[in-house]
This record gives sequence, C-alpha cells and structure tokens, in this order.
Amino acid sequence: MAVEIERKFLVYTDRLPALVDGQRIVQGYIATADRTTVRVRLSDQQAWLTLKGMTTGISRAEFEYPIPAEDARLMLDQLCNGGHVEKTRYRIAHGLTWELDVFEGDNIGLIVAELELSSEAQAFERPEWVGQEVSHDPRYSNLALARHPYQRWECHGTDTPR
Amino acid sequence: MAVEIERKFLVYTDRLPALVDGQRIVQGYIATADRTTVRVRLSDQQAWLTLKGMTTGISRAEFEYPIPAEDARLMLDQLCNGGHVEKTRYRIAHGLTWELDVFEGDNIGLIVAELELSSEAQAFERPEWVGQEVSHDPRYSNLALARHPYQRWECHGTDTPR
Repeated sequence: MAVEIERKFLVYTDRLPALVDGQRIVQGYIATADRTTVRVRLSDQQAWLTLKGMTTGISRAEFEYPIPAEDARLMLDQLCNGGHVEKTRYRIAHGLTWELDVFEGDNIGLIVAELELSSEAQAFERPEWVGQEVSHDPRYSNLALARHPYQRWECHGTDTPR
Repeated sequence: MAVEIERKFLVYTDRLPALVDGQRIVQGYIATADRTTVRVRLSDQQAWLTLKGMTTGISRAEFEYPIPAEDARLMLDQLCNGGHVEKTRYRIAHGLTWELDVFEGDNIGLIVAELELSSEAQAFERPEWVGQEVSHDPRYSNLALARHPYQRWECHGTDTPR
C-alpha cells in the first residue's frame, strides 16, 4: 500500500510551456456504493488496477497493480459502470515533476495540474502557470469527473482561470 | 480474463469423506453499486484481488490477480465495506476436483460443494454426498452470504440437506 498525497490546481493556459510527449489515458470506474474507488487505467499497452480508500485531508490509501492491457479493455467495456474519463497527461519538470491532465470527451475544456507530495506539509515551488488550488474541491476528483463531467457543470471557470 | 462456470450444491454431511488439509480463507467485498463483484481473498500468506462481472446463466467473466498478503489485510480492514466471509476449503477428488466450503462465523452451519467446469454442458460424476443443486439460488453466492449470512436466514435447511 502507498499513501497518495496530492495537491491539485487549475492553470493559466496562456502561461503554459509547450506540451510534448503526452500520454493518452482512458480510465473507468467500478460503480461503488461508498467512497472506495476501484479504477481501471489503460495507457497504450500498459494498464493498472487501482483501489483507493476514503480521503483523509489530501491523503488517501492506494493499492495499485499492473494488469494485462487486454484485461483492462474488457473491464472498461464490461465492468466499469461507474463512468469513464479520457485525458492526455503531460509531465512538466519544475522543481518537482508536475502532471498536467488535459481532459477530453465530456470533460473537454478542463486542464488540471497535479503534484504528488511525500508529506502533507511538503513545500514546493509554484510555477507561474499554476492558478487556484482545487485539492479540496470534490468536483475535480477523476471519479467525480467520470460521473458528472465538466461540460455538464452549470457554472465553471467564472472565478477561476481556465 | 477467464470465464468462471461453476455448479454449486448442498451436501449430505453424514455421507462426506474425512475432511483433511483444509485451506482457511477470509474474503471481503468492496461495496459495489451494481452486480460487479470486487473481492479480496486472503489465505495464509497468499492473497488475490478478483473482479467478476454480471452472471449469465452459470457463467461469469472473472479477472484474478495475486497481491501481497499485507495489502489484502489492509484492504479487508479499510476498504471492504461490502461484507466478509470466513470459510475452510477442502478439495475432494471424485472424477473432477470438488471444492467443499465449510463456512464459519455468521455462516456457520452451511457447507457448499462447488465444481468448476469448462463448459456449461460439461457432464460430471455426482458423488453420493452431493445433494440439491443451488447454482441458480442467489442466496448462496459468497457475496450474498457476506451481506446476508446463513445464520440470519429466516428459514434454511427445511427442504434441503444440511
């Protein structure tokens, strides 16, 4: 088990560096009855099955296992009734390595920058393209975006950079 | 992915052969919102994470992966809000290999014999200790037994061998 500690931010898209070498990701969720997440992630020929527990602050127990890509394709098709997310992930080195998720499909228009930390208190340098923090906004979890995509939000981006 | 084809029977306990070399199993379920099953199984120092799709007749898509026993212990404790089952499994060779599950905890009193087949039509020899078939009775799925254990059934064993 790992503990996932993650901070999440909106971005000023006009300040972003050129985005290169993106990794296309399709992920789907088993429909769960509580806050436990069961995620199937497929990227090119690599795939993972990930279970995450309840969130405590910005920390979360995480169990991740590589699985055959063919299994992931079947699971996405047959088992993941809890919604899907498509995105391209870019890695940007700026002190630590930031992950920039450019969403597609029903979440098109949304770009989120994530930073994995080793403790909740860890300091980090904030690039000029990083805007409002949304770590504690449940709408921006990928599971929430699978169930209630960005394009269907009544109001988005009004007081936040896009 | 495998397809699980399974037939399930109650047994005449007084006709059973001596039960030896049982494998103690504890398994728990992620609380799912549909008929997809996410199971964590721990047996001694071995553990598996298993996803199963909807049942069609007696067949079911099944994805199973070995995981570290320590992960399984944490998941059973922290993530499996969908119920737990404890049992000891015995293997009995009789033509094919039968699996005899002797349930414990809230399911004590229940013994179920299972046979994994390679096709739904596959013929098999029926030992004299095999009683009524319950393959199609949803109460006898391990997930159902986790949620609604045998000891809490209003009526059991009245017209069936125990």
